[in-house]
Amino acid sequence: MSEKIKRIQNILKKHNVDGWIVFCHHSYDIHLKYLLEKWFASSTFILIHKEGKPIVITSQMEAMMVDNETFEVKKYKKSEELVKLMEDEMMAVPKGSKIALNFVEESFKHLNFDIISAGTFKALTNLNKEIQYIPAKDIIFEIRANKTKKEIENHKIAARLAEELMEEIIEPIIKPGMTEKELAALVEFECNKRGGVAFEAIVASGANAAIPHHKASEKKIENNQVLLIDYGVSYNLSQSDITHTYWIGKNPSEEVLRAYEAVDQAKEAAYSKIKAGVLGEEVEIAVRKKFEEYGYDPEIYYLHSTGHALGIETHDIGYGIYRGTPTRPSKPLLENSIITVEPGLYFESKFGVRLEDDCIVTKEGSIRLSNTPKEIVCL
Amino acid sequence: MSEKIKRIQNILKKHNVDGWIVFCHHSYDIHLKYLLEKWFASSTFILIHKEGKPIVITSQMEAMMVDNETFEVKKYKKSEELVKLMEDEMMAVPKGSKIALNFVEESFKHLNFDIISAGTFKALTNLNKEIQYIPAKDIIFEIRANKTKKEIENHKIAARLAEELMEEIIEPIIKPGMTEKELAALVEFECNKRGGVAFEAIVASGANAAIPHHKASEKKIENNQVLLIDYGVSYNLSQSDITHTYWIGKNPSEEVLRAYEAVDQAKEAAYSKIKAGVLGEEVEIAVRKKFEEYGYDPEIYYLHSTGHALGIETHDIGYGIYRGTPTRPSKPLLENSIITVEPGLYFESKFGVRLEDDCIVTKEGSIRLSNTPKEIVCL
Repeated sequence: MSEKIKRIQNILKKHNVDGWIVFCHHSYDIHLKYLLEKWFASSTFILIHKEGKPIVITSQMEAMMVDNETFEVKKYKKSEELVKLMEDEMMAVPKGSKIALNFVEESFKHLNFDIISAGTFKALTNLNKEIQYIPAKDIIFEIRANKTKKEIENHKIAARLAEELMEEIIEPIIKPGMTEKELAALVEFECNKRGGVAFEAIVASGANAAIPHHKASEKKIENNQVLLIDYGVSYNLSQSDITHTYWIGKNPSEEVLRAYEAVDQAKEAAYSKIKAGVLGEEVEIAVRKKFEEYGYDPEIYYLHSTGHALGIETHDIGYGIYRGTPTRPSKPLLENSIITVEPGLYFESKFGVRLEDDCIVTKEGSIRLSNTPKEIVCL
Repeated sequence: MSEKIKRIQNILKKHNVDGWIVFCHHSYDIHLKYLLEKWFASSTFILIHKEGKPIVITSQMEAMMVDNETFEVKKYKKSEELVKLMEDEMMAVPKGSKIALNFVEESFKHLNFDIISAGTFKALTNLNKEIQYIPAKDIIFEIRANKTKKEIENHKIAARLAEELMEEIIEPIIKPGMTEKELAALVEFECNKRGGVAFEAIVASGANAAIPHHKASEKKIENNQVLLIDYGVSYNLSQSDITHTYWIGKNPSEEVLRAYEAVDQAKEAAYSKIKAGVLGEEVEIAVRKKFEEYGYDPEIYYLHSTGHALGIETHDIGYGIYRGTPTRPSKPLLENSIITVEPGLYFESKFGVRLEDDCIVTKEGSIRLSNTPKEIVCL
C-alpha cells in the first residue's frame, strides 16, 4: 500500500469517517489526479475505505494505467456496467457508514470543496440511501493544507526548476519583436520539459502588465516597456508559481524603478511577518502599509491579495494572505504550508509590476523557495 | 452585439427560454471560455437574457479582460459583493421566467451537461426561488453540436496546422533516445505557437502504444518500435485531434505492417458510411467488420469506439460513432458536425496502432480535414 493511501486512511480514522469517494468524469476533480497520479478521460470512481485496498472503477481503455499494487482495479466497457459496478461497491458499504464525498451543502463559500456536479451527486447518493454522506471538506483540508516532507521536497524542486529555466533559457532569448504568445509558448515548453506546466503562463508586455491575469496575446514585446511573466513548473504534482517583472531596454523610467522598489519592499514587509500561527491579515496589512509609505494607495493600485496556498493546484487548499471579512475571516498561517508572496502595483493603460515568490511557512518564519531580483533586470 | 450572442439569443427564443446562466469558479465550465473567449480564475457569473446586453459579474482583477462592447460588466472586490451582485441580477428576473442552468436532474447519463456543482447549484437557485430553473441541455446541444460556418473554418485551420507541424517540424526531429516526455513537450510547444494545445499530447512508444490513453513517460523512443502520437491544435477555440502511428527504423515488422493496413482499411470503411443522417452505429459496425475480415477480433483488440464529436472540447457535444446501448442509443450523424474517425488495434505488452483523422459530416458524406498516411511512415 502506498504511503499516500496509508496517510489518507489515518486521516479518515482520525476524523471517524469510514471512506472517501472521488468520482469524476472529464478529469474535473483534481483529487483523481492526486490519487492516481495521472488524468483519466473516462468516468472514474475511487473508493478509499478506512482500511484495505482502495477500489478504482474505470474504463477498459484506461484501466491498465492504474497502479494495481495500490488499487484494486475493476473495469467497464459501457457506462451501464460502470453504474452497476459502482452500485455493487456502494451496496457493500455497511448501513449507516459515514462516507465523505467532494460536495458541500448549499454554499458559495467553499468552492474548493464543492466539486461533484448536482445531477451526479443525486444519482451517486441514491445508489445506496443507507449511507451517511458527509462533505469531504475537513479530510481534504487535512490531506492538502499541511504538506508532507516529500511534497515539500517536490515544491523546492518545482521552484528551483522554474528559476533555472527563466535565468538560463528564457531571459537570454527575450527580444523585442517576439509576441507575448510566442514567449508564453517557449516558457511553457521549458516548464513541460522539467515536469509540467503548472498553469497557462501569463506574458504581459507594456500596458498589458496592468492586467493581473492578462492572457498572452499577439502583442509584440517592445523596447522601453515592462515585461511581466507569471509561470510555474509542476513537479510530481507539486507546483511553483513565480512572477518576474523585467524592463526591455537600457534605462527603466523613474516611475517603473520606483514602483519596482515599492513592490520589492512590500514583499520584504510580508516576509518580515510570515510565520506559522500569524494571521494572514497581519501580513496583508504590512504589505498595504508599505505601499502607502511609498505613496501608492493600495485601494487603487493593488488589485488583489498578497498570497495563496500552493500545492497540487495553483490556488490550493490552506490559508493564504488576505484581509478577512465576516464570512471569510483571516486565519493563522499553517506550519509546513507552501504559500505565494506576490505584491503588485497596477497602473491602468500604463504598466504593472508584480514580484511573486514561493515559501514554506515554518515555526520560525519562512524558508524562501525562490528569489525574484531586488532590482529590475534589464533585458 | 456579437454574432455569437445573437445566435444564442435566437436559440433561447426558439426554445422558449428567457435566459441562460453560466456560473463558475476555477474555470471548470467550458462555456465560460466559449462566451468570454478566455479563462477566468475568479468566480464569474454570466447571464444572457433572451434580449439585450448580457451581464458578466467578475472580480476587479479580471473585469478589464471582458469585452465591454458585448457584455455589461459588473465587478466585485470581495466574494460577499459577488453574491450581492448575483442576487440583484437574479431578483431582477421576472417571476416565473424560465432560466437555463448547466445542470441535470439526477443522472449519470448526461455528464457533458452536468456541470454546476451541488452546493453552488443550491445556493444559486435559492437567490430567487420564483424562477423556473431548467437544464440547459437542449440549448447547449443546439449551440454546440451544429457548427457555424466560422467554426467549421476554424476546424479546417486547426487540422491543417496540426498536420503541418507534424510533417514540417516534428517528424524531422524524432530520434531514438529522446524520451516520450521530451517529444510530447515539443509537440505541445508547436501546437501552442499555432494557437493552443487542444489536450495533453499522448506520445507512446513500443508497448506503451498498446495503452490508448498512455501518458508520455520517461521511456526513450527506440529503434524497431512503433511510435504513436495523439495531439491537437486549438485554434480560436476549435480543436483538431489527430493520431499518427510511425515506425522508428527501416523495416517495420510484418505484424505491424498488417495491423497498420487493417486500421487504415477500417478507417476507409468508416468513411464509406459516414453521412449526415446515418446512424453512428452503422459506421461502428463497418469498422468492426473490417477488423474481423483481417482476423482481429474487435472484442479483444479494439478497446474503444470509432469517433466522437469535436469542437471547443476534445470530446464535444454531438453524436459520435459508437454502438448503441439501451440507455445510450446510437443517433444519426448530424450535418455540419465535426467528428473524429479513429480506429485502432492494441496488442497488450507489444504494440498498438491508431490512425485518427477529423472530418465534417455533410449531406453527401464527409469532408476530410486531415489525412494520416495510408502506409506507415518510417522515421
